[in-house]
Amino acid sequence: MQERDNRQMFAPLQNDTFLRACWRQPTDYTPVWLMRQAGRYLPEYRATRAQAGSFMGLATHPEWATEVTLQPLERYPLDAAILFSDILTVPDAMGLGLSFQQGEGPKFERPVRDEAAVSALAVPDMERLRYVFDAVTSIRHALNGRVPLIGFSGSPWTLACYMVEGGGSDDYRLVKSLMYSRPDLMHRILEVNADAVALYLNTQIEAGVQAVMVFDSWGGVLADGAFQAFSQAYIQRVLRQLKTEHDGQRIPRIVFTKGGGLWLEEMVNSGQPGHITPEVLGLDWTVNLGRARQRVADRVALQGNLDPNVLFAPPAQIEAEVLRVLESFGRFPPGGGAGHIFNLGHGISQHTPPESVVALVEAVHRESRRLRAQG
Amino acid sequence: MQERDNRQMFAPLQNDTFLRACWRQPTDYTPVWLMRQAGRYLPEYRATRAQAGSFMGLATHPEWATEVTLQPLERYPLDAAILFSDILTVPDAMGLGLSFQQGEGPKFERPVRDEAAVSALAVPDMERLRYVFDAVTSIRHALNGRVPLIGFSGSPWTLACYMVEGGGSDDYRLVKSLMYSRPDLMHRILEVNADAVALYLNTQIEAGVQAVMVFDSWGGVLADGAFQAFSQAYIQRVLRQLKTEHDGQRIPRIVFTKGGGLWLEEMVNSGQPGHITPEVLGLDWTVNLGRARQRVADRVALQGNLDPNVLFAPPAQIEAEVLRVLESFGRFPPGGGAGHIFNLGHGISQHTPPESVVALVEAVHRESRRLRAQG
Repeated sequence: MQERDNRQMFAPLQNDTFLRACWRQPTDYTPVWLMRQAGRYLPEYRATRAQAGSFMGLATHPEWATEVTLQPLERYPLDAAILFSDILTVPDAMGLGLSFQQGEGPKFERPVRDEAAVSALAVPDMERLRYVFDAVTSIRHALNGRVPLIGFSGSPWTLACYMVEGGGSDDYRLVKSLMYSRPDLMHRILEVNADAVALYLNTQIEAGVQAVMVFDSWGGVLADGAFQAFSQAYIQRVLRQLKTEHDGQRIPRIVFTKGGGLWLEEMVNSGQPGHITPEVLGLDWTVNLGRARQRVADRVALQGNLDPNVLFAPPAQIEAEVLRVLESFGRFPPGGGAGHIFNLGHGISQHTPPESVVALVEAVHRESRRLRAQG
Repeated sequence: MQERDNRQMFAPLQNDTFLRACWRQPTDYTPVWLMRQAGRYLPEYRATRAQAGSFMGLATHPEWATEVTLQPLERYPLDAAILFSDILTVPDAMGLGLSFQQGEGPKFERPVRDEAAVSALAVPDMERLRYVFDAVTSIRHALNGRVPLIGFSGSPWTLACYMVEGGGSDDYRLVKSLMYSRPDLMHRILEVNADAVALYLNTQIEAGVQAVMVFDSWGGVLADGAFQAFSQAYIQRVLRQLKTEHDGQRIPRIVFTKGGGLWLEEMVNSGQPGHITPEVLGLDWTVNLGRARQRVADRVALQGNLDPNVLFAPPAQIEAEVLRVLESFGRFPPGGGAGHIFNLGHGISQHTPPESVVALVEAVHRESRRLRAQG
């Protein structure tokens, strides 16, 4: 009943360029959005956060999450919105005790480091994440059909990194020690995480997100072989469980393994029976888009991949680097079959001058139209 | 005169397996050494460092540098020694004021951030690095021909990262901002660095090192395109200036770009006129050795690439992971033409149990002999 009500209540989509690019359909220009586009580089975000008192204060109150999600869209003609939230909401709902310490990043009070802690892990009750799904529905209403809304989750491996390390890490010593010493325990953590992530994303889809993205932020720290066994296999386990349609709309899936440029062929086809190819692969700035496109034979759309540090340069250099990324992707067959979504190769830096994003978005739209007109 | 004396004084080499592997000549087994093999994971290193008072105290006194360089060879039958030093000796000699702050890593008192600081940069007088060259000669004598001695330097780009950031960095914001905003200044820094690195390595060669390695530790943080222009081009500038022979011995060159697995073809042949292919490419653990070997068509030897975190697992798992790396490289043509030097994909962790290295070295030697016997 809830679903039916939502469908009737959400306004029709006015700008479907992002979704068309996900499906490798022809578009008039290259759509653009930015990872962490609602964030600390915006003064209005900092003001709302000050009101909310904390990052999690923002994330857990749907009205604030809605406000900050829409802030970048008020400034820039971005082609998608992304839910304001954090990848660590899921392990927090598992009872690990998340906190954000001033200047230190996230910490878990009860990291998962022994057999007892692993055994106690379970897929959390989605009611504990109700604030996320309420935010999704609230944002969809507030967007009023301007652009599509992207939902997201961390990948099973990326969540496991935080759960075992108890926070960020330079060397991933604890999580990799567990992985190499007790692969059985690591597989058990990843199974629970994959099932939790799938349920979490499906519930976001029911609440109104129009595309989903899996952030495999730490997949790239794994050795060849370990990546396939401990990250990719569990992203596949997520994808196998995901709804691919909701309310008559297909839901494209974006997978982004930072530092995963060597494994693109396997992401498209691992050779395992039942492999699911996501619609879009996110790429960081180390990857040449044209070469990536050849390697995946245009079987997926590509998202990326400007170095966020380009945004510290003057507008002329930003435009030159945008053009370089657009040109590296290459031409679009007129009938479709290729897809590029412009983005950064990582989240936007908190130190970014907001006017740099004006230059970026303007250049992506203008130059991509011009390149398409050249054929 | 100094050179002639050295040649007469150094004992003949007893174990040339490492050098043969660099030249892709047949070997009975796969040679092994470890990045940072003389380091904090060894209690005897910690004892010597306590005597010396500091890391730079060790590095700047040839007798101590000699002692710690030889320590791992007393414990393990490693196939090469590497000069105990630091990549930041060169910018320190440029007058930037290096210090190592407790628990914080290296800091430069006078980072290079504006036009005036860039203009003031110059190739340092090698007399200021005499302690390094004295250490090289002292180590060669102490080794007494057991195994070859590897000299090293940071790459021009990697040194520039520290020089501009003033220390380590998470996001390379300052150095990349300079690179994107003022490429002219960045190129000037890199020119000076390349010429300094070449002179530094040549002077190490004259003092007695038998192979040289360029650590491009931060090349992998660059965007495609920027890597080629700001890191690879200046590594080439170093290679063009390097002595390739000394005292009748050829000096192999190892280049290791951490995170550079996507650019292997270009490292072997950039397509630029006069491109110099180093004898050996170092690889981190994200790269599959067998695939890398195909991509470079065995035109270089490969060095690597176990994840250092494997050394936190029990011996049986260490042996299994060693075997996986050896097998991923594949077979050796009996007449030569392929080369593999076993190493980690990064420096050994200070938390490594020293007995793990026993298991590692033993497994590399035993299993590689067995695999060669299988043909």
